[in-house]
Amino acid sequence: MKLDVFLVPNEVAPADLNGRVVVAVDVLRATSTIVEALASGAKAIYPVGSIEEALRLANTLGRAEVLLCGERRCIPIDGFDLGNSPREFTPERVAGKTLVMSTTNGTAAIGLAAAAERVLIGSLLNLSAVAAELERAGADPVFICSGREGHFSLEDAVCAGRIAARLLESRPGDWAMNDGALAALELAGSPRFADPEPLFARTRAGRAIAAAGFVEDLAFCAQTDRHAVVPVLLNRHLTLAPSPSSDER
Amino acid sequence: MKLDVFLVPNEVAPADLNGRVVVAVDVLRATSTIVEALASGAKAIYPVGSIEEALRLANTLGRAEVLLCGERRCIPIDGFDLGNSPREFTPERVAGKTLVMSTTNGTAAIGLAAAAERVLIGSLLNLSAVAAELERAGADPVFICSGREGHFSLEDAVCAGRIAARLLESRPGDWAMNDGALAALELAGSPRFADPEPLFARTRAGRAIAAAGFVEDLAFCAQTDRHAVVPVLLNRHLTLAPSPSSDER
Repeated sequence: MKLDVFLVPNEVAPADLNGRVVVAVDVLRATSTIVEALASGAKAIYPVGSIEEALRLANTLGRAEVLLCGERRCIPIDGFDLGNSPREFTPERVAGKTLVMSTTNGTAAIGLAAAAERVLIGSLLNLSAVAAELERAGADPVFICSGREGHFSLEDAVCAGRIAARLLESRPGDWAMNDGALAALELAGSPRFADPEPLFARTRAGRAIAAAGFVEDLAFCAQTDRHAVVPVLLNRHLTLAPSPSSDER
Repeated sequence: MKLDVFLVPNEVAPADLNGRVVVAVDVLRATSTIVEALASGAKAIYPVGSIEEALRLANTLGRAEVLLCGERRCIPIDGFDLGNSPREFTPERVAGKTLVMSTTNGTAAIGLAAAAERVLIGSLLNLSAVAAELERAGADPVFICSGREGHFSLEDAVCAGRIAARLLESRPGDWAMNDGALAALELAGSPRFADPEPLFARTRAGRAIAAAGFVEDLAFCAQTDRHAVVPVLLNRHLTLAPSPSSDER
């Protein structure tokens, strides 16, 4: 059994992902927002890299059918329908809608992960659901921490470490880990980082979000297990994995 | 006062290093070997990237005057005089000699750091001396962890965190830190990583070195404060910084 955590996307080579299940993590805020949007009833989310690609795809899908969402430097993109604050993605706004989303870091990490066999979206909001999905799949997971503009983000490492720790509890045994996994598990277990909201307030991403006027997003993204859902990438878009109870029916 | 730790070299943009004092860290084994070689009386060390560059520089300096050293995949380079095991760099072999050194990760990180105002070489072997030099310089340090083939190396983060922790003890105050610094300090303070030799035995670099037949290097590189010296990069080569006592004379 293998467990790898890549602390920045630049660490990842496509060969590292062959046949693996990838969990993309961008706690502040892309993967938290994706979880919130799909839990609020959005039909599908297309993660894209550039603004141009978002506009092109929206035209292809039919502009009237699509909500354009995303941010640059934490700020909503001009002319887009929604930003990247999870608090905007209420059932009233997104239920039944198709979303095209471009964010600085998170959607790029998801694109990178597309070389894997399966890509899941992880955040604190759906921590236990992701761990349960990995256990059910008997997967050897790879966590990709999105970081921030190529730099390491502590909150992503802590979140990856928490999901991984949960998996190791439920599937104890002889796990081969890379150095990133050893570090992420240690950081996730640190009492100093146990409460996510004050942790976010210390990290670069958290401080940038607060400075941009979205300080309430920190408390929002710090909620653990708000939703029992797992977004999955398939054919370039994200939808919710069927819940285990519906599998058993 | 600012403290930054970059956990992989890919994180570093030249602008991050402007006017800063950089500490390059490749515990297993390049920076440990550099410390050992200069402490053993080597006159100077030229860190270079490629084997071709090493041969070209050796010819320029005069092949007979130079010891060529380095490794690829932990193994000494064919035709070179020495590998990258610090145990080879005894006074008998290197005293008074000029060394040209090419290693997979460490020398590349040092080259990257050359954009900084000053570049120091850090390892466990000279931990306290580096911390003291940073304190004396009143520096806002940047640690660059060499990692391994673009991947994060836990032992480099722990070493950087230990040197940084020592500096923070001697210069308490309001330090602005990046996420890498927060993580490295936490990892360095973890009781699970307190003993470097068993830590090395768990990391990717440590296991590769052991598999290549150099397991004794792990205990060697784990020695803390074996030497009170600080290698410094100036005009593309490394020599020892004058010791503080000689400054005061």
